[in-house]
Amino acid sequence: MAKVSPRTLSGFMELLPRQQMKMERMLSILRESYALYGFTPLDTPVIESAEVLLAKGGGETEKQIYRFQKGDSDLALRFDLTVPLAKYVAQHYSELAFPFRRYQIGKVYRGERAQRGRFREFYQADIDVIGDGKLDILNEAEIPAIIYSTFTKLGLKKFRIRVNNRKLLNGFYAMNGMSEKAGEIMRTVDKLDKIGAEKVRELLIDEVKMLPCKAENVLDFMAICGTNAEVIEALERYRGMDGTFDEGLDELIAVTRYLKDFGVPEENFAVDLTIARGLDYYTGTVYETEMTEHPEIGSVCSGGRYDNLAEYYTDKQLPGVGISIGLTRLFYVLSEQGLLSDELVTAPCDALVLPMTEELGFAVAAATTLRNAGVRTQLYGEKRKFKAKMAYADKIGVPFAVLIGEDEMNEGMLSVKDMHTGEQVKLTPDEAARHIAARVAEMNASSVIKE
Amino acid sequence: MAKVSPRTLSGFMELLPRQQMKMERMLSILRESYALYGFTPLDTPVIESAEVLLAKGGGETEKQIYRFQKGDSDLALRFDLTVPLAKYVAQHYSELAFPFRRYQIGKVYRGERAQRGRFREFYQADIDVIGDGKLDILNEAEIPAIIYSTFTKLGLKKFRIRVNNRKLLNGFYAMNGMSEKAGEIMRTVDKLDKIGAEKVRELLIDEVKMLPCKAENVLDFMAICGTNAEVIEALERYRGMDGTFDEGLDELIAVTRYLKDFGVPEENFAVDLTIARGLDYYTGTVYETEMTEHPEIGSVCSGGRYDNLAEYYTDKQLPGVGISIGLTRLFYVLSEQGLLSDELVTAPCDALVLPMTEELGFAVAAATTLRNAGVRTQLYGEKRKFKAKMAYADKIGVPFAVLIGEDEMNEGMLSVKDMHTGEQVKLTPDEAARHIAARVAEMNASSVIKE
Repeated sequence: MAKVSPRTLSGFMELLPRQQMKMERMLSILRESYALYGFTPLDTPVIESAEVLLAKGGGETEKQIYRFQKGDSDLALRFDLTVPLAKYVAQHYSELAFPFRRYQIGKVYRGERAQRGRFREFYQADIDVIGDGKLDILNEAEIPAIIYSTFTKLGLKKFRIRVNNRKLLNGFYAMNGMSEKAGEIMRTVDKLDKIGAEKVRELLIDEVKMLPCKAENVLDFMAICGTNAEVIEALERYRGMDGTFDEGLDELIAVTRYLKDFGVPEENFAVDLTIARGLDYYTGTVYETEMTEHPEIGSVCSGGRYDNLAEYYTDKQLPGVGISIGLTRLFYVLSEQGLLSDELVTAPCDALVLPMTEELGFAVAAATTLRNAGVRTQLYGEKRKFKAKMAYADKIGVPFAVLIGEDEMNEGMLSVKDMHTGEQVKLTPDEAARHIAARVAEMNASSVIKE
Repeated sequence: MAKVSPRTLSGFMELLPRQQMKMERMLSILRESYALYGFTPLDTPVIESAEVLLAKGGGETEKQIYRFQKGDSDLALRFDLTVPLAKYVAQHYSELAFPFRRYQIGKVYRGERAQRGRFREFYQADIDVIGDGKLDILNEAEIPAIIYSTFTKLGLKKFRIRVNNRKLLNGFYAMNGMSEKAGEIMRTVDKLDKIGAEKVRELLIDEVKMLPCKAENVLDFMAICGTNAEVIEALERYRGMDGTFDEGLDELIAVTRYLKDFGVPEENFAVDLTIARGLDYYTGTVYETEMTEHPEIGSVCSGGRYDNLAEYYTDKQLPGVGISIGLTRLFYVLSEQGLLSDELVTAPCDALVLPMTEELGFAVAAATTLRNAGVRTQLYGEKRKFKAKMAYADKIGVPFAVLIGEDEMNEGMLSVKDMHTGEQVKLTPDEAARHIAARVAEMNASSVIKE
């Protein structure tokens, strides 16, 4: 028979079992962590009507989207989880309680140019809090606190959540009479990290056509740094010149104060006036998160406060704040950097039961005892030589092999072999279950990320 | 601004939060249950090359598939999880250990005619064991044992796994010289439940053009019933007439004996000679699972043994056995029948912290204490009247409200209100955490399905 070559499309992540187990661990930590903060899980369709998905329209999005006809329907695959959330909240508005807190972890699709480390199918892991008409500033502090807690549970330590407030920027540009050029200025300032202050000054003067003194003002403002208290003190000097700026400063002060209440250490968050976020719908606090030893990766978790989640679907004003982890990319980067722990059990099972007898009843009963104690157990029923069975145990990387021969069957005992140490002990099925469960729990107490 | 009407495509399930929580519970039980039996989780792309996905080609599948161009690529959305598994195993053959045991729970897509209770996007929850060249019969008994264990954990009791063996059927047709008509006969016999034996006899004679005595033979064979021991005894009478039949009978005897070893009660499985499964690649044991009080639903979990998983991709012979739960449809049916429990906590959180003070530091600390004890906690920061806060607590259906006024803050205590009983007690944060966690655990000990 002519064969079709089995292959996976480029830009689509498909993991081997051991890597997949690490990904599953990350997914499960994210689900638990988000749920612990009182977010409800949502699951919206991957396919939506193109009209609904592209209500906002335009831009890069439209070019990258997977869009197709089926019958008379113009369909598209979701390219993020925010637009489906907006649709969901507008559609089910009367059945939801506000603030509405939801998390969603799901795959999204963007037909980007294929490139190493860029994905066309990738997981986003989002949390958002949506208010009905208004939403308290406390939420803008809680969101980064959740990110801190989640990253910590994953095992990340060296990261920093960088916080800014769009009102500070808008107010600053207004007080300098540069509001019209604000967009252009922000795009230029965004290059500070890459090209340095001198080059940015040149661009501001030559390309954005700013007076040198004004360009200087911008650079002075963006250069404000230090501890969070020092930054806020420096910002206080601008107070009283613009209402929006003052509002933004009050919000920033509230957010940094609450972050302390939430127990986020100062080394894990920093006020950074250069953060603006590209998306034009952010209106208040904005976040980016960098891995401090890998700034080249860029932000691994970003978001912010917006005033109108669903303006394309409803007249209701639905302000919100949210953040998104690009999970597939984060996983890829961690893997490339060798930051994924090898201590976790990544075998399909914790115990491999290897019967060496014809009669399998005792082996089946032993497997059942292990499973009832929560030990993930595979019963190996293939008729192969002992050596082949042990080679299989090695290949799947199982922590424990459970050997059952005639002796064991007659004694009602199990020979439990620790595959790491080679040590073998004879135990009753119940003892074996406790022994294996305890050791596996130790191994799995390790974080999925090891910095 | 002109609004786009927010809507979800027909045939796509999108649940409200409380229903979604029940679906999440089912997903999490399936994941845990499959993992406990030593299956590794896989996650393959939703989009594959159309050539790969349609390697087998033809039939209903091709008409229903979502297929589209993106750039030069001819793409398609997966319509089941078996074809992606075949691709995966063929592609990664040298990196896998056999038997390869995987589970996958994921969405698949079929552009079927829209119809109540039929879905175009739906979850399948599959397990398969793949051998390299051969695979022991034990696996054919373990698969239905896993289904028994999984359904039991979900809370289903009134179900029956119906087991047959294709070799029995093929052998029976061979010994009667009807092999050529076997397909046609099986399709006709499949109507027994619906139209009865008399009508089937007529069809066999008039349409399939069988001699009356042969039609009688078929009906006699299909009418074999009773306890599993009785069925096997009746089948023994055909032994010695056809090699394939005898092989099938030996396998059936082995499977029923092992099922007993696995602890599956006889009332939950039955040998049923009328089960054939439409798919032509099943070659040994086949399964269907019916809810005994709702036979009209049809099979909620089906599968079987096949000899060649990946013949379209590789020359390697990869026999396997697997089973699939159509989860979205099962969920829909359970929901329609009112079989989903209302005892589980379906609120986004277990505790809603309601601060009544300006200063939020103590409330934030209380929320942190609760979360550290595993209590899913929402901190309500909106500045609203007490009545509005309690209305919110009612609307989300939270089991406990935690009230913090000036008194509580000064005393370092929390007022914990049980929203079901109305009872309110003052506790330290640690006591409150233990109190709430214990009560919530009780509520969640209930099964997701209540028959």
